[in-house]
Amino acid sequence: MGFEKTAPHGGNIYNFAKKHGYHEQEVIDFSANINPLKYPAGLKEEIINSFENIKHYPDPDCTELKAMAAELYQTHWENIIAGNGAVDLIYTIVQRLRPKKVLIVQPTFSEYEKACKTIGVEPDNLILKGDDDWQLSLQEIGSVLNSYEMLFLCNPNNPTGNTHPIETIKELYRQCKKNKVVLVLDESFLDFTREEDRNTALNLFKQDDDNLIILKSLTKMFSIPGLRLGVAVANSNLVKRLEEFRPPWHINYFAQRAGVYCLSNSRVVAETRSFIEKEKQFVYDGLKKITGFKPFKPSANFILVDVRVSGHSAHTVATSLANYRIMARVCDNFIGLDDNFLRFAVKKREENNKLLTALNEVINSGIK
Amino acid sequence: MGFEKTAPHGGNIYNFAKKHGYHEQEVIDFSANINPLKYPAGLKEEIINSFENIKHYPDPDCTELKAMAAELYQTHWENIIAGNGAVDLIYTIVQRLRPKKVLIVQPTFSEYEKACKTIGVEPDNLILKGDDDWQLSLQEIGSVLNSYEMLFLCNPNNPTGNTHPIETIKELYRQCKKNKVVLVLDESFLDFTREEDRNTALNLFKQDDDNLIILKSLTKMFSIPGLRLGVAVANSNLVKRLEEFRPPWHINYFAQRAGVYCLSNSRVVAETRSFIEKEKQFVYDGLKKITGFKPFKPSANFILVDVRVSGHSAHTVATSLANYRIMARVCDNFIGLDDNFLRFAVKKREENNKLLTALNEVINSGIK
Repeated sequence: MGFEKTAPHGGNIYNFAKKHGYHEQEVIDFSANINPLKYPAGLKEEIINSFENIKHYPDPDCTELKAMAAELYQTHWENIIAGNGAVDLIYTIVQRLRPKKVLIVQPTFSEYEKACKTIGVEPDNLILKGDDDWQLSLQEIGSVLNSYEMLFLCNPNNPTGNTHPIETIKELYRQCKKNKVVLVLDESFLDFTREEDRNTALNLFKQDDDNLIILKSLTKMFSIPGLRLGVAVANSNLVKRLEEFRPPWHINYFAQRAGVYCLSNSRVVAETRSFIEKEKQFVYDGLKKITGFKPFKPSANFILVDVRVSGHSAHTVATSLANYRIMARVCDNFIGLDDNFLRFAVKKREENNKLLTALNEVINSGIK
Repeated sequence: MGFEKTAPHGGNIYNFAKKHGYHEQEVIDFSANINPLKYPAGLKEEIINSFENIKHYPDPDCTELKAMAAELYQTHWENIIAGNGAVDLIYTIVQRLRPKKVLIVQPTFSEYEKACKTIGVEPDNLILKGDDDWQLSLQEIGSVLNSYEMLFLCNPNNPTGNTHPIETIKELYRQCKKNKVVLVLDESFLDFTREEDRNTALNLFKQDDDNLIILKSLTKMFSIPGLRLGVAVANSNLVKRLEEFRPPWHINYFAQRAGVYCLSNSRVVAETRSFIEKEKQFVYDGLKKITGFKPFKPSANFILVDVRVSGHSAHTVATSLANYRIMARVCDNFIGLDDNFLRFAVKKREENNKLLTALNEVINSGIK
């Protein structure tokens, strides 16, 4: 059975709906790791009430948004840079700093690599193993760091779902400093975990550090991927250099407005965490019961599954799920993974039940 | 009397309001060249009705928006690239193509130069003169073109307001082709002119041309600068190269949605044109009557004024206008202009009257 090329990312609901002749509304998207609890209450009204401001250029300095983020992350206005999603910041960092040699801890979000390729750099990969529970060997990485200028680490990692504890990050950061490597630490999913306050590298960041960049996404926690918004915390001089590289008015008015609104709704984060806590356990337990499925213990809002033993490939499972109007993420285009891996977002109970039911039917139907 | 540095652009209403202790709503912004007739009727409802889609990633391919733009510009889907405003495309073009030598026809929009500086290129300037009605000498430019890789021309030009006729553009383009220079033609304001259909370089563009990039802005005509949207028409391979350089999901959902809606509202363009036609004549005539003011004949929706003979500087006039809650654009940071030049957007009759009344009072009050 032939399959088309795996989409570069999950979440292209427009393409999926069109391809299968579904309405976008009837599709259940398990392929994008977005908070299933919708955007914060009142956000729609906030946008509607300020709608007339689209007639003005947006604040080029993102003054309010930066002030709010600085307060939340306990740093200074000058240490904050906003982007059209965290991925926008990844590209800006790479294209502005133009590191000659880059190391990426894999398997992970593919855009670190893709950003490097836009400046002609082929990054090296340090591939972690599922059999080791995706653990990072500090000794192994420490022995090679001195030949790199930039290191990408995603924590919790997408798509494996594990979180490296702050002790590991602290030691890694020390090694990066010693070797003058810029550590780009992507914490896009950390606010979905219970241990965010403990594990965030914000605890390590000092205002004059020039080799730590911490990425935060607002897109995922606040369920606004359509609006695009991420921020980074970094040295103030570095923030300036990155901002000078970009066109003015880079963040549109609605994204700035929504960002301010979302960041002031910390209740959403707490509610989401306890919701995800329960549901991820439910989905994890359900996946474990499916014959031949090996889910990896998740720390954030998505679960990676190794389907090898089931005798099905990730592609066949995803294709079958499409008949149930369910989108899943085939992981064969992640470096270090293959067509045995699927990633599922954790959603609401009703949807999670639909997924588990569909998977049980698919696996038992014997289609391979 | 000391003045602070001129803002890099007009339109920072948030800064202006804060500085002077005004509410944003009471400020009349003549400093940004935006359609005074508001955004197209129904746009707000369009955004509200599709609001729930912010929970999905935006279409990374901008399928609908590109199809609509391709139809309007009578070209193909593959020849369209969208940006977060035309300025976003300017940066992408420069940062992706990395031209070693760039020529800019001045005085003009400062972001062509700024984009070049982000890649360490100091562009050369060909400075046109007000005494020649900002006319471009094809002979002069033709004699130097062979030492450049990229040429920026804004048509109609910001801030001078003149339009180079299609005959000039055609010959310039021929010279660019001959010399293998990429001509980046910024037509962001051309849809405000009566002769758009005649003067647009879209008439010259053929699908295989790889040295013509035509920029169009939706921000200005459709009065949505807060939302950021521009498009470019270019060779399909070039479009691909530019898109690969940028992060995915580059254009947020609302901007895509608004773009599709606006481009299907061609009535707005026709109405705006006849409205601007009348009002720009009215403001031009009014400015001519102010002692010592020399306005340049405008072809788009803004007017450049030389205030030298009035004995006032542009800064003093702008500072005085601020007391009337009026924002004006001081042009001393345009290459080839100085503190004798002000730029005013053309707005509605009531606002235009307020501007002319305020200017008459300021000039006659003797504050210098």
